[in-house]
Amino acid sequence: MTSTPSALDPAIAARLKRSADGLVPAIAQQYDTGEVLMLGWMDDEALHRTLTTGRATYWSRSRGEYWVKGDTSGHVQHVKAVALDCDADTVLVKVDQIGAACHTGDRTCFDADVLPLGQ
Amino acid sequence: MTSTPSALDPAIAARLKRSADGLVPAIAQQYDTGEVLMLGWMDDEALHRTLTTGRATYWSRSRGEYWVKGDTSGHVQHVKAVALDCDADTVLVKVDQIGAACHTGDRTCFDADVLPLGQ
Repeated sequence: MTSTPSALDPAIAARLKRSADGLVPAIAQQYDTGEVLMLGWMDDEALHRTLTTGRATYWSRSRGEYWVKGDTSGHVQHVKAVALDCDADTVLVKVDQIGAACHTGDRTCFDADVLPLGQ
Repeated sequence: MTSTPSALDPAIAARLKRSADGLVPAIAQQYDTGEVLMLGWMDDEALHRTLTTGRATYWSRSRGEYWVKGDTSGHVQHVKAVALDCDADTVLVKVDQIGAACHTGDRTCFDADVLPLGQ
């Protein structure tokens, strides 16, 4: 589980619809090209930090800790815009991605495993 | 819970990493403009149908049934490409969205609720 309470604006927290583990999926998109870079997870505090620090910040489900994208890799995400979807259960973060978004070195996490269409 | 078994290619099913409820998040993106349209959820069978029918198909968590996007609204998503991410726990579906992606009538589900940045 993630930490509480958070400094997230109560007006946002009140309408955010979290999964059972207190998280929402967060889609990171390159703001100018439209590339979908990766999907991470945010709790209230990760969203708050993303909104207020200018750096995309996620909750790592595997490590159980906050994760400021680029802190170890240098592949920072500068936040340009953040929106909730119509159900307030998904976040879209438009960023300027420095270098590779994917830990494999690929520009996006969706570059390597394209699935075949058709029968 | 969702139905099993699925006709999904066993090679794909073997590497797909599902959440506890058997689902993966699926990001729908307009294939030519790059717009992020919506986020839905897929189980193995929804992914199989998306790959083989040419129509984006999701699992509705609220209704507990498969949902072929556009079957009631006419706002069909024609599938152009499908990829898994590096962890095989998220799907990116590039589509040609007919009309509005959002049930509110907005082009995308992220148009209406842009959050303020900064303190």
